[in-house]
Amino acid sequence: MNTETSLESHSNESLQVIAFDVFGTVVDWHSGIARAVDELGLSVGGDAFAQAWRDGYQPAIQRVISGELEWTLLDELHRSILDGLLERFGITHLTDEQKSDLNSAWCDLDPWPDTLEGLTRLKEKFTICALSNGNLGLLFHMAQHAGLPWDCILSAETFTAYKPDPKTYLGVGKVLDVEPGQVLMVASHQSDLTAARACGLPTAYVERPLEWGSNRANPERPDPANTYFATSLIDLATQLGC
Amino acid sequence: MNTETSLESHSNESLQVIAFDVFGTVVDWHSGIARAVDELGLSVGGDAFAQAWRDGYQPAIQRVISGELEWTLLDELHRSILDGLLERFGITHLTDEQKSDLNSAWCDLDPWPDTLEGLTRLKEKFTICALSNGNLGLLFHMAQHAGLPWDCILSAETFTAYKPDPKTYLGVGKVLDVEPGQVLMVASHQSDLTAARACGLPTAYVERPLEWGSNRANPERPDPANTYFATSLIDLATQLGC
Repeated sequence: MNTETSLESHSNESLQVIAFDVFGTVVDWHSGIARAVDELGLSVGGDAFAQAWRDGYQPAIQRVISGELEWTLLDELHRSILDGLLERFGITHLTDEQKSDLNSAWCDLDPWPDTLEGLTRLKEKFTICALSNGNLGLLFHMAQHAGLPWDCILSAETFTAYKPDPKTYLGVGKVLDVEPGQVLMVASHQSDLTAARACGLPTAYVERPLEWGSNRANPERPDPANTYFATSLIDLATQLGC
Repeated sequence: MNTETSLESHSNESLQVIAFDVFGTVVDWHSGIARAVDELGLSVGGDAFAQAWRDGYQPAIQRVISGELEWTLLDELHRSILDGLLERFGITHLTDEQKSDLNSAWCDLDPWPDTLEGLTRLKEKFTICALSNGNLGLLFHMAQHAGLPWDCILSAETFTAYKPDPKTYLGVGKVLDVEPGQVLMVASHQSDLTAARACGLPTAYVERPLEWGSNRANPERPDPANTYFATSLIDLATQLGC
């Protein structure tokens, strides 16, 4: 939280790569999913539906991590959660194509207002890399849709392991031939950063008060042990001298 | 070879993704490697050294494919070939750092003169994707160095399988959620295209007469069964209506 101390203990000179969590950190999943649901005119409002869909994410990932479910890409997990929600809410009139289109709304999310400027500035000095539990196809399509200027896209699919598995955080350095301490992990979720930190990565927490929409307070709280605390990716770029 | 027939039998409408071989097809490995060798002032000329290094590539890949060698990334195969060549040529004065730097010349290759315009035009209409036996780190660094505007980078490393394994060609469609027939494989090597075609991909042969430098004729000859024949990536873009 204390920028001056952080800059001293982690000299920018040693940083080479910035790895970003994507959903919530770089793109606004809540408003994108809520809009896609509202466009279908479902009986459940987009805001509630988006929150319920995302609420299904951690338990689904956990089933893969625990081995209860075999390795499954996020696209398929999203679809399975969606099917469960439609059943729970008694929504039976959607065609298979409409369900597929709705599921692909996770590719068509918009960046936060500061994202493109922040990434572009950070890219001038560092290698910027997606590190997401989203599958590669989802992340490639999202980058095209949102114009995200990634130097590289790394995914749980690359490592056949979901965050917070150390293989993912350590995999960034392995792929890009740098030490873990030269990779800054950026996320708006403390659990992601805590796991990265345990692997020796410096960390930056980015505040995203609207991650869950304006009707639900974001429960995330940053740990003061993070290397950086930023209110936006533009703020992070400024702190890193970009 | 007959463009009109090709365009009829494979309607452009169905094409979604263009997958590119990289070394030789998109970047000029020969002159880049030769220059890096010449800069070190070795007793063997850059031209001959570059050819010998690349001559070691297929046998090394083959050792992995046959299972004689466990899964090994191209960076490491390149380094192992390099060490063998230095020994063969009696070059003993290079430091470990010089050898590492020389090995990383494979990341710093320049695009052919038509590459950037060709890729940029093709990207307006199609998803453009690297599909190379190079490892991810090598391909990411090369894209940064050469300014290659990939929508996505897929590698043997993504699939833990080297071309011509069908997993690689079929993997493009699986990752990007399209059919094999919607992925055009582009290469300057017929063996790559023949293997892609066996997986149901349409193919485009690009002529690279200088792939082996100006002192060694390129032995490649295109099969008339390819869907397209192009003299450059700009020519390919024009044939595909970009």
